[in-house]
This record gives sequence, structure tokens and C-alpha cells, in this order.
Amino acid sequence: ELGPFENDIKKIKAAYVRSFLFENKLMPSTWIVIRIDGCHFHRFSEVHEFEKPNDQQALNLMNSCAVAVLEEFKDIVFSYGVSDEYSFILSKDSKFYQRQASQIVSVIVSFFSSVYVMKWKDFFPFKELKFSPSFDGRAVCYPSTEILRDYLAWRQVDCHINNQYNTCFWMLVKSGKSKSEAQSYLKGTQTREKNELLIRQFNIDYNTLPEMFRRGSSVFRIKGEDSTMPKNGTFGDAKEKIITDHSNIIEDAFWKEHPSILS
Amino acid sequence: ELGPFENDIKKIKAAYVRSFLFENKLMPSTWIVIRIDGCHFHRFSEVHEFEKPNDQQALNLMNSCAVAVLEEFKDIVFSYGVSDEYSFILSKDSKFYQRQASQIVSVIVSFFSSVYVMKWKDFFPFKELKFSPSFDGRAVCYPSTEILRDYLAWRQVDCHINNQYNTCFWMLVKSGKSKSEAQSYLKGTQTREKNELLIRQFNIDYNTLPEMFRRGSSVFRIKGEDSTMPKNGTFGDAKEKIITDHSNIIEDAFWKEHPSILS
Amino acid sequence: ELGPFENDIKKIKAAYVRSFLFENKLMPSTWIVIRIDGCHFHRFSEVHEFEKPNDQQALNLMNSCAVAVLEEFKDIVFSYGVSDEYSFILSKDSKFYQRQASQIVSVIVSFFSSVYVMKWKDFFPFKELKFSPSFDGRAVCYPSTEILRDYLAWRQVDCHINNQYNTCFWMLVKSGKSKSEAQSYLKGTQTREKNELLIRQFNIDYNTLPEMFRRGSSVFRIKGEDSTMPKNGTFGDAKEKIITDHSNIIEDAFWKEHPSILS
Amino acid sequence: ELGPFENDIKKIKAAYVRSFLFENKLMPSTWIVIRIDGCHFHRFSEVHEFEKPNDQQALNLMNSCAVAVLEEFKDIVFSYGVSDEYSFILSKDSKFYQRQASQIVSVIVSFFSSVYVMKWKDFFPFKELKFSPSFDGRAVCYPSTEILRDYLAWRQVDCHINNQYNTCFWMLVKSGKSKSEAQSYLKGTQTREKNELLIRQFNIDYNTLPEMFRRGSSVFRIKGEDSTMPKNGTFGDAKEKIITDHSNIIEDAFWKEHPSILS
Repeated sequence: ELGPFENDIKKIKAAYVRSFLFENKLMPSTWIVIRIDGCHFHRFSEVHEFEKPNDQQALNLMNSCAVAVLEEFKDIVFSYGVSDEYSFILSKDSKFYQRQASQIVSVIVSFFSSVYVMKWKDFFPFKELKFSPSFDGRAVCYPSTEILRDYLAWRQVDCHINNQYNTCFWMLVKSGKSKSEAQSYLKGTQTREKNELLIRQFNIDYNTLPEMFRRGSSVFRIKGEDSTMPKNGTFGDAKEKIITDHSNIIEDAFWKEHPSILS
Repeated sequence: ELGPFENDIKKIKAAYVRSFLFENKLMPSTWIVIRIDGCHFHRFSEVHEFEKPNDQQALNLMNSCAVAVLEEFKDIVFSYGVSDEYSFILSKDSKFYQRQASQIVSVIVSFFSSVYVMKWKDFFPFKELKFSPSFDGRAVCYPSTEILRDYLAWRQVDCHINNQYNTCFWMLVKSGKSKSEAQSYLKGTQTREKNELLIRQFNIDYNTLPEMFRRGSSVFRIKGEDSTMPKNGTFGDAKEKIITDHSNIIEDAFWKEHPSILS
Repeated sequence: ELGPFENDIKKIKAAYVRSFLFENKLMPSTWIVIRIDGCHFHRFSEVHEFEKPNDQQALNLMNSCAVAVLEEFKDIVFSYGVSDEYSFILSKDSKFYQRQASQIVSVIVSFFSSVYVMKWKDFFPFKELKFSPSFDGRAVCYPSTEILRDYLAWRQVDCHINNQYNTCFWMLVKSGKSKSEAQSYLKGTQTREKNELLIRQFNIDYNTLPEMFRRGSSVFRIKGEDSTMPKNGTFGDAKEKIITDHSNIIEDAFWKEHPSILS
Repeated sequence: ELGPFENDIKKIKAAYVRSFLFENKLMPSTWIVIRIDGCHFHRFSEVHEFEKPNDQQALNLMNSCAVAVLEEFKDIVFSYGVSDEYSFILSKDSKFYQRQASQIVSVIVSFFSSVYVMKWKDFFPFKELKFSPSFDGRAVCYPSTEILRDYLAWRQVDCHINNQYNTCFWMLVKSGKSKSEAQSYLKGTQTREKNELLIRQFNIDYNTLPEMFRRGSSVFRIKGEDSTMPKNGTFGDAKEKIITDHSNIIEDAFWKEHPSILS
């Protein structure tokens, strides 16, 4: 019974088969952004009855997974998340997996996914996880800190635009409009009009909504030399601490306060 | 407070930021193999006290995840797993994610990982999952069925060689040798000598060990038109059934029995 | 004066600078097609007063360059050219430049260009070459012979369609129509209508025009074992001969006659 | 006779065939370096009896081709050449050929090659060009000006090291040593020792050899705003001028003098 195997061992040209492997190295000395997105999360959020437009606990779970990712992968210096999407920034000089795109993307997305399932019960103690969540991911590189910050600004602006729209949309739906009526109603409205709608019809001051909803979440390391000390006032032995924050990351102020992140 | 955001919305050059995205399309009309590997599974198997050299339940869990992957992703036509590694074959004409490597790899590895955590309790009801498992993955393409079969043969030969070595190694260790003594003992031995060692010293006929250990596991779809019917004799409405099997996939016989897999 | 250099020699991190080199390997076991196209040949053909719609000598020069390319690069098994474009096919198993795309493309295009200039006088003894011709190139891979033949058929069909259109267009222009009148006149006409136009107005039977204009040119090696012997009846010591031909390469007949080309 | 073509026109799936084209875009906002190298120039220089270790006219011809390349391709901001190698730098924001690597490399190498042949007679009026010169090329990107300057420094240091070695080697050969004796003699010698050898045995002060041999050649544009004016004191209508120069490009001085090159 082993016979055929043994004969085959010699036949197999492992080197030939391996020659089909191809490199997919990301350029050295550039910022690597790994962006992951929930797959079918529209349906996932319905099945698990997430609150609309934002489910606080679902977002807290996402942030908690991001913290775990930063704890696990030391080369990640910053991450930013909104809704079912998260972007992880690896340091310019990272040699993680020799900068092979597929491996870096896959291991981060894999770890994030398994942490998501493991932590589910902590955030939804009374909800059963009904099917397996999954995320896809891709890598992009940015050659300068300026362009990296443009990328992050783009994501935060997107967060703001989507959240404002979704807040109006769901208030209209909850007040009795159909989804398509709400859509027509909002079509072509500007930021100012949406804010006025919220104030007049629903007595909601958009700017008092939770920062996490309006600005998304940043998860990053702070080190002893940063000007900002963690709230508990000490780093203990760790020398660094992973922080979850909802600051404006478009303006310079945030980056001046945390000079070590992109240094 | 919204002010700065609004000003920035205009400033952000989303198109510019997006121009850094790059294609990583896999060649059309070629077999896509997504191979995933457990990260730090040496430690993972120690912490969770997996049996050595093979833990039946850990392998059953891997196979069960592979079944879930084939149920989820219809373009996967075959998969082969051994130890903490699994290879998924997408059909030559798959248009999944427009054949973008990173997204295909990441979504499969993500789904596999979250299923692994969700099913853990089914396979290890008395063992707590102590930390988050993760897998990395990569894509390779093969331009012909012949070379794809060379790839699969290479993996199955590897399974055989590693399993025979590990069976000897762990029997020696369990019989009192240190790990480094066992290693020296086996250095340079051939297949025949390892089989003789197992028979003489441990009264183990290698060829009677479970097929899953010696040959790995194949998970694939069978359809009505295949010559082999599933053991339960019916496909019901489904027209296809996902099968876990431990055949020799090096020889032609298997592929002749299942002509639809690589057709 | 050497001083600064010497100090710098140590400073230079050649390995770092070299780490930015990236692989661009073409998949093993696939047909490599290098297609080159004349740059600004519209203007080039005007300046050098090429005959319209086809300049016999300009095409002969292109073909002569292709013959030189096949003599120089032994891994090229076939080439097909039309107008200012040429496609060179490298054998599936070619290891030329370790299958690095940029180098293969560049060296072929470079050699073709310098031969073009060197041979100019042979084909245009009374015309001065007024500026430097240049070509761009790119590589594509095809995983099977069938798809490679689809590629070649596509190029030959293109040759036919363009030539028929151009023949009508230039006959109309030569007969007194302006270029835009000729364009309008031909808009939307089918093959049959174009042929009728040529017969009725210009007494030209399209099918009697030179094969090189209607079908383009194939340049390839024939070997002793091919069924077709070269016209001069002998291979001498060479065992192979490079042939220029204007056959239909869409139909099977050509490939059956020359089985060694794609074997 | 046309029949088979017509039937085939419909059969041909041009879109399918084209789907095999793949992108090879170079990252936006990075410096693109196209480096070309002579193929078989060892033999080429023997056949054409180039003077050793440096043939002034052969280098002048290379530089003259580089000037033509800069005249033709406006996105090239700087080039540096030594021996049979030339590096062309495209501006960070170049959109040339949508930054597709193969096309950029091929068109530059093609133009360089055809200019080389066209200008041959100007530099070697009494030498016939005996066979077609060819060059291969490849693209590399550098994300910052600092690393680009490291690249250029690396090439110039290489020029210096090779030239010093070759000067010694050919002086020894011309003085009667065999090539292998000369090689053994120089093995392991340092810069200082080579300079001493030249002075003592051949009365040559290395630092008085022509700058072009010791430092290679830079070809670049200067614009009105540069501190250095062209020797003829005017730019005329052109506003820019292409200069050939043999400066030290490792030190800052050169770049301070020509701030517009990498701005």
C-alpha cells in the first residue's frame, strides 16, 4: 500500500511546483496600510439585530479586536476603524513576512476574525453568534507620511458623511417613513440641511452625538516619550500602552500630540 | 466643531489617495490554489495539549472548517489538508473578487479562522480555547491540470514523509528517549528503515495507522453524475454533496472516479 | 579629490538600494507573447512618405527585422506582424532572463529598433531616415496553446478588418474625396459592402490584393521534421530555417502543416 | 477565400484574449529609475576595437544618445551613465504611459538603441557598425529623494571602483602581463594601493585622468531659475537646456547648485 507513494516521491518535482510561487513584495520604506472590510455585514447586522445607525457594542467589539491586533503584531503603529471596516498601518521599515502582501493581509484578517468570534460573548452576552463573520482585506502602500495622512483623512471624512446620512435616514425610518421615502427625502441634501433636519424634526444636535459615531475610532500605541500620558498615569513595565480614541485625525493637533506614531 | 471636517471634505483628494491601489489579478484560465497555514501552531498544539504525532480531533476540526469553506465559497472545487495546513483549489474560470489575490486569500483565511473558533467546542467540549488561532495564506496559479495534480501530489507525499517521521519520533520520545536523542536516531533513515523500526521496537504496522494520518484529507463536492455515490445513497435536492475523504490523490484512480472535480 | 568618494564608498548601502528591485516574473509553463508597436508611426510614415494604405517596402523592412530577432533570440518560436506591430512568441518553457517581463520586453524591442535603423538603407536606398524610430512593448502570457491561437487569430482578424477599411478609405481619398468624407462614406459598412465598393467603383477584387496586406506576416522556424520543406529544398547544416509567410493562421491547416512550432 | 476569415471574426473573443493583459503600474509619487545596460557589450567593444579601459568616443556616443532621450521624453529629469549603462530618472509625478513599467522601459530602450545606430557614424566615421547593438532595461521606484540620491551615489561609487580597477588592469596588460596575471596582481588591493601602483609603475596620477572616466556622465536639464547658467550664457527661447556634465553627484554641492532637478 505504501508502494505507490514511494515510487511517486521520486517522481514529484517539488522544485518545479514551487517555481510557480510568485513574489508580491510591497515596496520598502513605504507605509503599508492593510484595510479589512466585513463581508455581507449588511445581513450580519440584521441577523444579529444591531442597532441602527450605530450599534455601540458592535463598534466596541471591533475596537477590542483592533486592540488585540496591535498587541499581537508589533509592527502595526496605528489603526483606524469605522463601521465594519478597519485600516492597520505598518511602520515604513517593517520587515513583517518580508513585506509579502498576501501573507501580511491574510494573517491580520485571520487573527482579527478569530478574535471577533472569541470576544463576541463579552460584548453580546445575551446574543448567540448565528453565523461565522468574515472579512476581506487588501494592502496599499503610501510613499510619504503626508499621503498616509491624506488616506486617513479620507476615511474619517467618509465616516462623517456616512454617519450623518445614516443618522438622518434611520430617524426618518423610525418616524414612520419607508426606506425608499427616506432615501428620496435625503437625496441631494447638503451637510447643513441634514443638520437642520435633525434639529428641527428630531431635536437632535448632531454635534452632541457620541464621538465614536461621528469620528470613528483610532487604536494606537503611546510610548513614554509622548506628551500625552495614559489616563491611569503610568505605563508600568510595559513602556507602551494601546489606546482607543475618537479624535479628529485630519487636523495636525492629534499628530503633534502623538509625535511617536508616525516618526 | 464640525467646521474643520467640512473644510476638509473639499481638501481631500479621494481619487488621488485611491490611485495608490494596485491590481493583483491572478491570470485568467489557470487553477488558483489558496494555501493556508497555521501560525505558531507548534505552541498552539502544546498549549491545547494536542496528542502527538496526530490529534484526531484537531484534524477533524480542520476538516470540518474546510467543509464550511466549500459550503460558503462555491468556486472552490477541491481542497486538501494535512496537519495545520489546507489548500483550496478554485475553478480555472472563477471570477471570484475579479481574481484579485489579496482579497481571495484574505476572505478564505478569515472565514476559515472564524469557523475554527466557532466549532472548537464541538470538537473539544472539555478544552477551553486559550488564545486566538490564526492562519496565513497565499495564492499560486497553475496553468494546467497536470501541474495542479503535481502540486497536490507534492502535498500528499509531504504528508506521508512527515507523518512517518513524526510517528517514529514520538514513539521514541514516549519510550523514554529525549527529543534530541530521537532526532539523532532518525537522522538519515530511509522509509524502509522507519517502517522496520516501528514494527520491531513498537509492534506498529505503519500501513494500519488511520488513513487520515498517513494520507491527509480531501474535501470536495460530488455531483449526481459522478460514478461514486455518497454513502447515504442520496443527494436529496442538493444535487451535490461535500465529502471528506482520505484517498490516494497521487494516482489516477481517484481522479477517474471523480471526473467532475477538475473538469 | 578622491577623498570624498572614498568616504562615501562606505556610506553607500548598496544592499538597501538594491532591495527596491522587484520581481516581475512571468508564470512558468505559459506562452509569453511580446507585442511591440511603433510609436508615432502615423507621423513617421508621413515624413517618410510611405505608400498608403500599405507600403510594401516598409512591411518588408519590418519582416526583415523580425527574421533578425528570431535569429538572435533562440527562445522565440513564432512571430506575427502587421502594419507597425509585431508579436513574438517565446516557448512555454523559456527561461530567458528568468522570465523577467521588463528585461525580455526591453531587449527584444531594443534589438528590433537597432536592426530597423541598420537595415533601413537596404529597403529605402533613396530615402534618408529622418528621425529615430521607436517601439514600445509589453508582455502577456497565455496558459494554453488554444488561447495563444485565439490571440494570433485576433491579430489576424484585426489585420483583415483594418486593411479592408484602409484600402477603401485611401481609394476614396485618391479618387478625390476628403478624409472626413471618406470616413463618413464608410461608417457602418459591412465587409460585403466594402468589397462591393472596391469592385464597382475601383474595379479592385479585394481577394487578389497581395497576401501580405490582407493577412499580415508570420516569421517562424521550420525544422527538418516539419512536413513542409523550405523552397530551396535543403536545411544545410543548420537543421532549421527561418521562414516569412503570409498564410491564414486562424485555420488548423497551417498548424497541422507546422506541428513543431507550438509543440 | 475571405470566407473563413468572416466566420472567424465572430468566433474570436477579443475581450477574452485581452483579459490576459495585466497591469504593471509603478507606484504613484515615487521616483522612477529606468536603467539600461548594453547586451554582450564585452564582445561589442572587442569587435569594434574600443580603446581600453575607456573609449572616449564610445562614451561620447552614449552621452549623445542620453541627450536625445531627454529631448524626446520630457518627463525625464536626470540621467547618469557609465560604461555601457545609463539610468534615466522620471519625475515623481510622471504619468508617462500611465506608469506601466514594461511600456516605459521598452520605449526608452528602443529610442536609445535606434539613436545609437543613427549617431554611430558621427562618432566613428571610419568604423563600420558590424552588428546591431542592443540594451536591456528595468524599472525601479524610489519613494524619497534621499533614497534616489543613494541610488545615484551607488552608481557613481561603482563607476569609480570599476574605473580604478580597469585602469590598473589594462596598464598591466599593456605593459606585458597576461590578463590572468594582471587579475592576480590586483586581487585584494585597496584604493590607496591601486593609486600607488599607477604612480610608481606607470607614472599616472589617477586624479588627473579625465573626469568622464572617473565620475561618469550626468545629462540633465537646466532651467532659467538655476543658479548655473549655460556656458553660452543664454537659454534663447527654449527656457531650458540639456547639459552633459561630470560632477560629483554624491555630495550635496551638485544638488544645491541645481535645485530644480529633483524639486
